[in-house]
Amino acid sequence: MKIEHITLVRTPEGVPLESDFAPGYGSLGALADGEALVRVHALSLDPYLRSAMSGRHLSAAIQPGDVVRGEGWVEVLESRHPRMAVGTHWVAACGWRSAALLDRAAIDAARPIASAIEPRTLALGGLGMPGLTAWAGFHRMCEAKTSETLVVSAASGAVGATVGQLARIAGCRVLGIAGGPEKCAWVQNVAKFDACIDYRQRDLRSVLRELAPNGVDIYFDNVGGDVLQAVSEQLALRARVVLCGLMANYNGPPAPGPNPGLWIKARATVRGLVVYDHWAHFDTMVQELLSHHRADRLHFREELHQGLHAAPAAFCRLMRGENQGKVVVRL
Amino acid sequence: MKIEHITLVRTPEGVPLESDFAPGYGSLGALADGEALVRVHALSLDPYLRSAMSGRHLSAAIQPGDVVRGEGWVEVLESRHPRMAVGTHWVAACGWRSAALLDRAAIDAARPIASAIEPRTLALGGLGMPGLTAWAGFHRMCEAKTSETLVVSAASGAVGATVGQLARIAGCRVLGIAGGPEKCAWVQNVAKFDACIDYRQRDLRSVLRELAPNGVDIYFDNVGGDVLQAVSEQLALRARVVLCGLMANYNGPPAPGPNPGLWIKARATVRGLVVYDHWAHFDTMVQELLSHHRADRLHFREELHQGLHAAPAAFCRLMRGENQGKVVVRL
Repeated sequence: MKIEHITLVRTPEGVPLESDFAPGYGSLGALADGEALVRVHALSLDPYLRSAMSGRHLSAAIQPGDVVRGEGWVEVLESRHPRMAVGTHWVAACGWRSAALLDRAAIDAARPIASAIEPRTLALGGLGMPGLTAWAGFHRMCEAKTSETLVVSAASGAVGATVGQLARIAGCRVLGIAGGPEKCAWVQNVAKFDACIDYRQRDLRSVLRELAPNGVDIYFDNVGGDVLQAVSEQLALRARVVLCGLMANYNGPPAPGPNPGLWIKARATVRGLVVYDHWAHFDTMVQELLSHHRADRLHFREELHQGLHAAPAAFCRLMRGENQGKVVVRL
Repeated sequence: MKIEHITLVRTPEGVPLESDFAPGYGSLGALADGEALVRVHALSLDPYLRSAMSGRHLSAAIQPGDVVRGEGWVEVLESRHPRMAVGTHWVAACGWRSAALLDRAAIDAARPIASAIEPRTLALGGLGMPGLTAWAGFHRMCEAKTSETLVVSAASGAVGATVGQLARIAGCRVLGIAGGPEKCAWVQNVAKFDACIDYRQRDLRSVLRELAPNGVDIYFDNVGGDVLQAVSEQLALRARVVLCGLMANYNGPPAPGPNPGLWIKARATVRGLVVYDHWAHFDTMVQELLSHHRADRLHFREELHQGLHAAPAAFCRLMRGENQGKVVVRL
């Protein structure tokens, strides 16, 4: 069976370019026992893929010549594995392909898309891995109390937007940090954070001092770099910091962190979050977020691109920080 | 009343020099209501004073022209405050003076030296503020479990040595990091750590990989800088890091910390420790450490210097990392 796919041509230097990728054609062999043939309906584009392209992610490296890895929403066309019935919909590691053969390991790791999830692309974002990241980080690590001030960076992203909305629902004062007026407007007007700071337009340190004069109780960090340093300078006593993402580092070599004296001074508790540790809570997360979503308290934002060929440009846009919400490629 | 004292002549640049200090004479006025006149028996020299000399410590800055601040073991000669009886012994903020007038605030903050503490200089070190730092850091922040591997830097220092010995008593495998063969010998042979790494002689990263092949479960950091980075590269899953001291930074400007990705990868919990938060546990600490000390399970090491005039050289030696144990100046 002939399929379309996208390969990585070279390891990106810095911010990826479209020319680091190439479309092409492959073929799928016959279905072996324990495998399933799936059609790919949509791809999830996630920043962690950039780290994997540099061999710096927990998951395996994506190397030149490889079809780009990644999860997608798939539908089962043929199956020789009891877990996957024909016609069912899943999130699975299909790669950047129009169709894929899933092996036993991929099938074991796949998650069925609950029928309540509509549109199904939400299973890639707000009700998928980014949703679980936000849910676990907020509920299992932030120790948030009513009226505390929570700051979250990449506030319009799939993780950040949900963290902030969960915090708002929990009665926190929520400040977002994002780049550009369009993102900030969405965060304030739709996600209804108390404020969103455009770090490109304003001096983050002085705005934080103004908006959080008594200090930041909780900082949920999706970016690292100077934003992490700046917020660490403004922490309240007994602050909690969740280290979740390193967007500022993904395109370059590992960068140093903030001066540890800031965390000593604040008696901060800093925790590293990896979503893989929290899969056991997946169904709880979906239930809770869906119920908020239906009650119009929680909004998801997707940036949809059309066609497999659009994936490289969409990924580069994501890695330049230009995306507006969760980036999904519909096939 | 005429007294001897030591003033700070200039703010040190980098590692302090003896010439940054000057001996001199001062006088004490008449005893006002609520004050006490004390004789100083010994001074405690602590690294935090260096930060205070640069105005970077939580406590007030020590500025050129000031008599150097600091705690000491004092004996009450005259008293107009009900808390301090003549002839009793205390740890109080006397400064680098042969005798001092303590005001109400200093008397409120002073701690009586329990009669069980012998010699009384231990109330400045192993059974004083550094002892509480170690006790609180270990018992309230490390969450140590039997057989876990704990690494502590500045392992022969007043805090590090006690942290490591408490960990050994609790059944941990304990690795120290210290500079120089003499310190390492004491840590291994007297404090009985499982090993002590001389970071000046050996490549810390490769020795850590060799001695902690399954990773470091707990890192108690007294130094910051590259040692913190190196140990962070070798953390086990769900490691705990206690940020306690920044010896590598005290002589210079604030330096960056480790790449946060290391802590994310390890799902580490990193906590900032300030001893002031733990005073309520002081008596518990003294009781526990004394009982271990009497049972010969816990050793304290003091480096005694004679005479107030010896304080500047002793402090410079401490800030060059050349001291062997808690630095105390006997008057």
